[in-house]
Formats: sequence, structure tokens, C-alpha cells
Amino acid sequence: MFFERVAVIGVGLIGGSFSLVLKEKKLCGHVAGTGRTSANMKLALERGLIDSIESDVAAAVRGADLVLVSTPVAQFENIFREIKDNLKPGALVTDAGSTKRNVVATARAGLGAKIAQFVPAHPIAGAEHSGAAAANAELFRDRCLVLTPLDENNKQDIETVAGLWSALGARVSRMTPEEHDQVFAAVSHLPHLLAYALVNDVAKRPNSAQLFSYAAGGFRDFTRIASSHPEMWRDICVANRDGLLHELHLYEKKLKAITQMLETSDAAALEKLFAEARAAREKWLNGDYE
Amino acid sequence: MFFERVAVIGVGLIGGSFSLVLKEKKLCGHVAGTGRTSANMKLALERGLIDSIESDVAAAVRGADLVLVSTPVAQFENIFREIKDNLKPGALVTDAGSTKRNVVATARAGLGAKIAQFVPAHPIAGAEHSGAAAANAELFRDRCLVLTPLDENNKQDIETVAGLWSALGARVSRMTPEEHDQVFAAVSHLPHLLAYALVNDVAKRPNSAQLFSYAAGGFRDFTRIASSHPEMWRDICVANRDGLLHELHLYEKKLKAITQMLETSDAAALEKLFAEARAAREKWLNGDYE
Repeated sequence: MFFERVAVIGVGLIGGSFSLVLKEKKLCGHVAGTGRTSANMKLALERGLIDSIESDVAAAVRGADLVLVSTPVAQFENIFREIKDNLKPGALVTDAGSTKRNVVATARAGLGAKIAQFVPAHPIAGAEHSGAAAANAELFRDRCLVLTPLDENNKQDIETVAGLWSALGARVSRMTPEEHDQVFAAVSHLPHLLAYALVNDVAKRPNSAQLFSYAAGGFRDFTRIASSHPEMWRDICVANRDGLLHELHLYEKKLKAITQMLETSDAAALEKLFAEARAAREKWLNGDYE
Repeated sequence: MFFERVAVIGVGLIGGSFSLVLKEKKLCGHVAGTGRTSANMKLALERGLIDSIESDVAAAVRGADLVLVSTPVAQFENIFREIKDNLKPGALVTDAGSTKRNVVATARAGLGAKIAQFVPAHPIAGAEHSGAAAANAELFRDRCLVLTPLDENNKQDIETVAGLWSALGARVSRMTPEEHDQVFAAVSHLPHLLAYALVNDVAKRPNSAQLFSYAAGGFRDFTRIASSHPEMWRDICVANRDGLLHELHLYEKKLKAITQMLETSDAAALEKLFAEARAAREKWLNGDYE
């Protein structure tokens, strides 16, 4: 596996780490990067994540054998349109979008007849740090990567993209876009929303300074994901709106049940709920679900 | 400061660490421990956290100069009654209960005329591990400790207990029990409930194994506190029921507002909420609220 020219659209945590590992593993020649923020692009070049800064998507994609789209998902629509007009035959496109139903729909609309060249992917490798500064060669190691291949993809291209992400260290699995969005609404998108909600709630109180001054390790870890990139998460929430609304609804039902346990001081029911949660989490930490 | 005989009621994470540091700093003579689980008490003795295992609270307290009550708070009622009949004049009692209004009420009822000897405390030093096995000498270092002194306490006793916790490494501050319970309902009790709720919600799904298999670092940190001691948290929730119900109510209002932003695809409002949360959290991490 070797890609003479790679285009990275959005050289942030994911895009920058992607090109960094490709280079370290000598899986590519030239990496052309493009992005919105010149300071970030300069840093990406200085850190050797990319070999050239291109002025736009068209310039980056022209002549590329492999294209990674790794911007917040709301930008995908324009990007796919620009890719379509410049993608060479046989070149492969993959992405790092955290939602898949809308990315696939956007790709179908934007890439048109070239849709078969796009193999959608989602590396489960977020972090609360973002930008080229945060890129690192270990980001994908032993992390899950979900492919949601299209009916239009040919088998060999799917294998190539799967092999590529495996080479970057990820554990590759496959789902439908619908299944993907349901799963991640529950285990990723909802928790992010809940953490943002709690911090925002505390921050808006008249006594927020006092409250924060007594927040400790539990609060810190619970809210770590509330330091995530606001624009990226805005896009994810809008893109997976239906899945997230469904999860919010289920969660609110659970909170209603807990509220009732509290109102009736049903200590036994509370303890049972807590103990079940702890047991499930311990089982998960033990690797029983891998 | 030196205590000839110390009684530790409940030799778990907090009680065990308390006696461990007292011993390391040579602030005490004999430490008598008592607790419900003989295996845990044996371990506490083997680890040198305590010097003797006592059969009950009365035996532990008899002759003690300092008593720490560090069991789940639902046990405090019986414990205070037993302490009352055995506490020697001039001896001091402090506690590690995570709620304070109900602990103070329970202490008034149980200790009766000896209430002045009790200086209530809450070390903010939880962890998801529990028991004597988890005790460690660093537990209180640079952690907050909240004293909620009583009108009945004399000034010197308050200073002694404050000095004691300071000697264990904690940063001591003071509040009323009411203020304490409001603050910790927001920054500790609610997050615990939310984390337990999420894990329980996921665990109860037909596809829970699949969901857990894709849960990643964000989920792990968000739910770390859902591995906390179920009985202890049951007791905290019941003891601080009103404060917690109030917080749940505010949080549900926030979720309702977010639901509406999603339903109307109000991307700008979502991004603003996320950005405000991130900024507040960064400010907190920078130590601006200490």
C-alpha cells in the first residue's frame, strides 16, 4: 500500500494525526493539506504533518490518490462538490466524520457519479484538544474505526481503505450508516451533550465561582468532553439530530424514574440502579464487550 | 497536636487514609478501628492502618481522644447513639459525611448534650475505589475540606479539627450545612446521578453489548463516577434529597432548552452553549476559581 499524493482537507487533530502516521510508516509520498486557519496550516507544515499548504480543496485534491476529509461535518457539502470536479479516476476518498447518515447523503449529492470512490469512515479517536498542535502518531492505535461502506463501493476499494486505517493502528469494523448513528448517539453524542449541559448550567449560576471552587476530580472527569470543539459538536448534533433527540428522550425518561425514586425516598431502588450501573461499567472496563 | 487514642468508625478509603496519614505524621498513638466487614478490617490491620479491631463502636470509642465517623451516612444515627454513651469528656468527634444538613440533625439527636464535641467535616476526596485496600497517604493532599461548625462548638475545638485536617494535607474552608449541601448537590451529587443514569440506561438496552463495544475515552471519563460505591451514593442521595431534586429540576430545564435547540436545528444556539461551557471549564482548569 502506497499513496503517491495524499490530500488532507482539514489538518486538525484527526487529519494531522492521519498524515503523521502515514508519513512515519512511509505509506505516502507528498501530503497536500488545506484548511481555513492559516496559523494552523503553518503549524501543520512546520510540524511536518503536511508537505504543502494548498489554497483550496481543488488544488489539494488535484492529482491525489487518496483524499481524507476531516473537517467539521457541516463543511462536507461544499468540500464534496469541489472534490468531484478534481478527483482523478481510481483515487479513493475517505472521511473522519462523527456522523454517517448525513455524510453519506451529502457525499451522494456532492460526488454524483464519483460516489463509488468514497468509502465512509469514523475513527473513534476524539480528544478535548484540537488542531494541528494536538496531532500525534498514537491517536488511532487500538482505537475503533467504523467503516460504513456504500452499495456503490467495489470490494477492493473497501479492503484498501480498511487496510489503510488498520495500518494506522485502528481496529476496523463495519456497520450501516443508520446503525452507526444510533450507536454513537447513545455512547458518544449524548454524553457530550450532557457534559456541556452541566458545565453550562453551573457557569450560568450567580454563585458559579463558588460552585467551581468546590468542583473536584469527579466533576473534572465527568465534564472533560465539555472541553471539546464547539463547532465540531454543533455540527454533529445537527447532523445526528434525530438519533440524539431519541437518546435525549430515553435519558429524560430515566431521569424521571430517578426523580421518582428520590421523591419517594426509595433507597433500595436507587441502590439497585447504582449497583447495576457499576457492575455494567466494571464488565465493560474488564473488556467483556470487546 | 497529638491524639493518644483515635477511633475510626468505618475503615474504608477515607477512614483508612485518615489513620494512615495520622500515623505517618506521628500525630497519634493507638488507632482503634471498627467496621462491618471482617475481611476489610483484617486488611486494614495488616496494612497497618489501624492497631486494633474493635467489635463495636462502643469498644472503639471508649478512651478515645479523637473519633472519626467515616461510614455511609445512613449508619450515622446508630453510631452517634453509641458514641454518646462512651465518649470521654474533652474528646473530639469529626466525620467525613458527604452531606451535612442531615448529619448535623442526626448528630444533635444522637449525641444530645455532647453535641458540642462534634465538629462536622467533609473531605472532598472521593474516588471510585473503596475499602481499606484503596486507602493511601496522599488522599487528602491539596483537596478541599469543608467544615460546617455548629453554634455549640467552642472556638478552640473548631481550630483543633481544622488544624488536624490541614495536617493531613487538606485545604480547609467553612460553610453552613445548608450552603454545603447546595454546593455539593450541584457539583458532585448531580453529576454522580447523571453518570449512573447513563450507564444504567445503556446497560438496559437489548443491544448493550454492541453499545459498550463502541464506547471510548469520552464515555469512560464521563462515567468514571458511576463506578462509585452504590450504598454510599444511595445514602448521599437520600440524605440530600431536596438539594438533589432541585438540581435535577434545573438540569432537566437545561435539557429541555437543548432539546428545543435540536428540534429547531438552531446550530448557533448549540454552538454558543457549547462554547460557553468550554470557556467556563477552561477558566476553572486554569485555577481562576480557587
